[in-house]
This record gives sequence, structure tokens and C-alpha cells, in this order.
Amino acid sequence: MPAEELAIGVDIGGTKIAAGLVTPEGKVLGRLRRSTPGHDARAVEATVVELVTLLGARAPRAAVGVGAAGWMDSTGSTVLFSPHLAWRNEPLRARLEDALGRSVMLSNDADAAGWAEHRFGAARGENEMLCLTLGTGIGGAIVLGGKLQRGRFGVAGEFGHQTLVPGGHRCACGNRGCWEQYASGNALGREGRALAGSNSPVAHALRAETNGDASAVTGEMVTRLAEAGDPACSDLVAEAGEWLGLGLANLAAVLDPGIMVIGGGLGSASPTLIEVGEAAYKKALSGRGYRPFAKIARAELGPDAGLVGAADLARLPRG
Amino acid sequence: MPAEELAIGVDIGGTKIAAGLVTPEGKVLGRLRRSTPGHDARAVEATVVELVTLLGARAPRAAVGVGAAGWMDSTGSTVLFSPHLAWRNEPLRARLEDALGRSVMLSNDADAAGWAEHRFGAARGENEMLCLTLGTGIGGAIVLGGKLQRGRFGVAGEFGHQTLVPGGHRCACGNRGCWEQYASGNALGREGRALAGSNSPVAHALRAETNGDASAVTGEMVTRLAEAGDPACSDLVAEAGEWLGLGLANLAAVLDPGIMVIGGGLGSASPTLIEVGEAAYKKALSGRGYRPFAKIARAELGPDAGLVGAADLARLPRG
Repeated sequence: MPAEELAIGVDIGGTKIAAGLVTPEGKVLGRLRRSTPGHDARAVEATVVELVTLLGARAPRAAVGVGAAGWMDSTGSTVLFSPHLAWRNEPLRARLEDALGRSVMLSNDADAAGWAEHRFGAARGENEMLCLTLGTGIGGAIVLGGKLQRGRFGVAGEFGHQTLVPGGHRCACGNRGCWEQYASGNALGREGRALAGSNSPVAHALRAETNGDASAVTGEMVTRLAEAGDPACSDLVAEAGEWLGLGLANLAAVLDPGIMVIGGGLGSASPTLIEVGEAAYKKALSGRGYRPFAKIARAELGPDAGLVGAADLARLPRG
Repeated sequence: MPAEELAIGVDIGGTKIAAGLVTPEGKVLGRLRRSTPGHDARAVEATVVELVTLLGARAPRAAVGVGAAGWMDSTGSTVLFSPHLAWRNEPLRARLEDALGRSVMLSNDADAAGWAEHRFGAARGENEMLCLTLGTGIGGAIVLGGKLQRGRFGVAGEFGHQTLVPGGHRCACGNRGCWEQYASGNALGREGRALAGSNSPVAHALRAETNGDASAVTGEMVTRLAEAGDPACSDLVAEAGEWLGLGLANLAAVLDPGIMVIGGGLGSASPTLIEVGEAAYKKALSGRGYRPFAKIARAELGPDAGLVGAADLARLPRG
């Protein structure tokens, strides 16, 4: 393969930075990983430069795509805001391009993952697709007409921050009743802690798991116990699934996609959540009976999605 | 002007059918209007053919764009469903092309109006825009990357049928709590009737207007009395405006447009509703402070928007 067709993808997460050399077919040829050096933006940049330099020895002209949680401007040049890192209106692309001597493109991590599912994963061949990254919150990507839609200011796809319950649970975004307060890992954790703390007899598995410390219940724990058959945790997952379906129906009312792909840590850990969510979506879609349903599918690329998508986006001509 | 640059736009409404000859600059050169012949789909088609034939004498090769309430498939060929007319899975484009000997394109009426605002109206020069048609319900159009986004099955933009209040007011779509049950002309009418029927002393203007018959209160009446300064009706409009703003914030969270244009009968009749809606949107947008606000603007093209947009869409190469 000509080295210039390769691209380097970097996925900056809250705990680790993963990088890989990605082929035009979405295969990852080389892979490196480092711990994220805390909240220190300069140290994070140095780690990205180190990983790209190591991987890039085999592909001296490969473009670099960097995905991270947060908001990038619509041209992929500037980090407007990042929840885990100290970037604010940071011209990260120019800084990395100077340091690397390569073309760099920044993307939101959920956008990158969704683009990867569109190009190489569960939504191959479908030009009208949405991808949900279901984890502690709900991130999103929108592909319409075969193009990633970043929005006017680069921050499209914040699916999790649709208000679904006016006056409902407080969200970290400052609002109340955001969808991700009802259908995410954080939602499962909150409900699990409430149940475990209530001395309800149905919460015995959660209490056993945490030695009676209700505050130690996590969304992952609820998900795992539910998949193992615990009735109380299954109820919590089913409730989250109903909310998941309602939000999917809202997205379909607005965007009418052909497929909605669900990935992320929670998405891959809980097939039940997605099953319940799909059934609820089909009961909630406005106009059901007069229109086709979008397909609901599990993501296929797993934890590689972010770096694969970031790399592939870096190969596109700049818009 | 070369005749082949003209296009003919037809806007099929529940009570009237309007048609016009539209220039590439969006000017309407000729204009005709008929009453909609009831729910008889064949009679509606005959009226469309009559209007196009009359207008088309000056432009024998002009393409024809037809906008109507309802769902068209994504290629603009087939009417999937129309709420006011008897079309169900009707290959209307082929029927009209056979009858007219011209190229025909079908569009949802809110899509057509939004496209017109993008091309010639309040959203000129903004490639990332949404348009709300605020009337008895809430229709919508989505333009991203300068392209009208019809969705995978042609039914994108059903903004009014986002669930905003789970378990809330019943909607004609079969669901509960749709946005348009809170921020539309129907919502104002329902609340006005409830207020007028409650013998509340604040409802005296509504009772005077209807000679005491609360069931005769309409959304238009509430809007008119509010704009004239009646305090109770102003409160109802302000309440609807709060809901309007919340829904706008949800759309912005998902789509991140540069501008949201608000048209339709209610949109043009109630500047107050839009003012309150804009303020509420700015208080509700997720991430406010870290991202720019989309501009909120009133539509500029008025009742011509539907036929102008339908005509202009008919000029585009078929996708």
C-alpha cells in the first residue's frame, strides 16, 4: 500500500490516549497507547506528538486525525471547549501541525466514532445515519447525504442534551431533564444508588456487590448485574431502555435516518438496553404505520471507532 | 429572461391552491389561485394541471415544483401520506408529469418554505439553517451544507412531533406531549378555551369575543388579543413562547444551526411569541456560554414561501 494513503488516528480519552495507523479500508495496522497525562493540555499535546512520531515513521506524509471529547469548531481547527482537558478556544490544529509537519484535523470523539461506523461499520452503505455513543452520557454523530454534519459552529450532535423531562433531573450541562440523565450509564448509576440506599429488599444484589455501600454503585455495576439476570437491575435497565427509545423517536422525527447505530461503553455492555430501546422506539415514533422505521443497530467497531474515524476524516479534503 | 430559467411553483393548502411563475432570483412573476376542491385527490390534481397549464404558456419547458402538507418520499416522486388529502402512496409525480409533459418535483410544504427562506429570505447566505412553520402545528425544514435534508425516507423535519412532555397532551399523531401541543396555534386555542371556560375573571376579553361560547375560542383569537394587549392572552402567548424556546434549544443541541427562521401563520401573526421564544431559547441552550447562539429570525417571504421554494427545488438536478 502506498504510504500516503495511510492516516494516523488519535483518540484522546479521559484516561488513555490511543493511536493507530489506519488504512483507507479502516484497518488498524499499528497501535499505541498511553495514559492521559492528567488535565495538563501541554502534556497531552506532547503525548500526541510522541505517538504520531512513532507511528508515522512508516508513513512520513500521513495526515493526522485527532478525536477528543469536547467541541471543535466546524473547520476542525480549534478546540472550543473540552470537559476533561484544559483546552478553551485552543488553536490545537495549528500547534500540532507546527510540531508534526503534517496535516491535522480535529474532531469530536463521538463524531469520529460515528463516521467510522458509517464508513466501515454497522452503517456501511447508508448515507443517512445517526450514531449514539452511549456511555456515562450520550454523544452523537450525524451523517446526512454521506457527509458528517458538524453544524454551523462545529457542535452538532449533542443528542444527550435534548430536554426530555422539563424540570427533571439536574444535568452537568446546567439544565434539567436532559435525555442523558435518563438513558445513560450515569442514569443507571444514580438509580442504582437510590435503590441500594432505600433498603429495598429487591436491591440485595447491589448491596452485596458494594458491601452495603450504596454510594459505591455504578452504572457499569447495574448493567453487569442486569445482564447476569438480577431482577432489580434488569428493571433499571429496562426503564433506561424506555427513555432510550423515546429519545430515538425524537431524533427520528427530526432527522429521519435510515439507521441509528448505538455504540459506546454502555451500548456494547448492554444488549438488553438496546433491545428494550428499539421496542420503545417503535412504539413512540410519530407517524408509525405511515413511514418505515429506521434500523437500530449495535456499533461494530468497538473501542477502535474513535481513532479509525478521526484518521479517515483527516483524509477528506478540507471543506 | 430565458423562459427555461423560470419554474412553476404550486402550493397545495387545505383551503386553497396557489401557483406562480418563479424566477431564479425567487421573484413571482405570475400568480393564480383556486379553492382546494375538498379532499378529492383527482380534483386537486386536475386543478394543479389547470394552473400549471395557464401559467406555463409563457414558459413551455419550465419545471414544476409542487408543495403540499404531508410526506413525500425522499426522491420527490410519491406522496406517502397527506393529512388533508386522500393521497396514500400515490405516484403523484409520474401522474402529473404524464399530464403536463414537464418535469415535476414534489416537496413537503414546510420543506419548500424553508428552502425559499434559505435561498431568498431570512437565511440567505447561511448554509446551516432550520425553518419552523409555526401554524396550527409545527412543521420544519433542515438545510445543512446548503442542501435540503429530506431524510432517508423523505420525512425529516417533523419538529412538532418531538416528545417534550412525556405523558402530556394528546397529539393528533397519536402520541402524547409533542412539542406542537405546547407551542402552536392549536396549543393557544386549547389553552384559550380552557381559560374562557373556567369562568376566570381574567378571561373577559375571550368571553366577549365569543359571546360567552368558550368552545369558539381559537388560537388566532388568542394571538390577536395578546398582540392587542389583553393580559390573559398575553400570558398564554408567553407560556407558548417558553415552550417554543425549549424546543428551539433541543433542535440546536442536535443540529447546531447558524439560524432558525420562524414562519407560518402564527409566526407572522405573533412577534411576541417569537421574542419570548428567543429569550427562552437563550436560557435553555445546552452549553450556553461555551458556544455561539444561532440567530432567531422571522421569515421574510410570507405566504409565497411555499410556492417559491417548491419551484426552486424543481430546478435542482435530481439527486
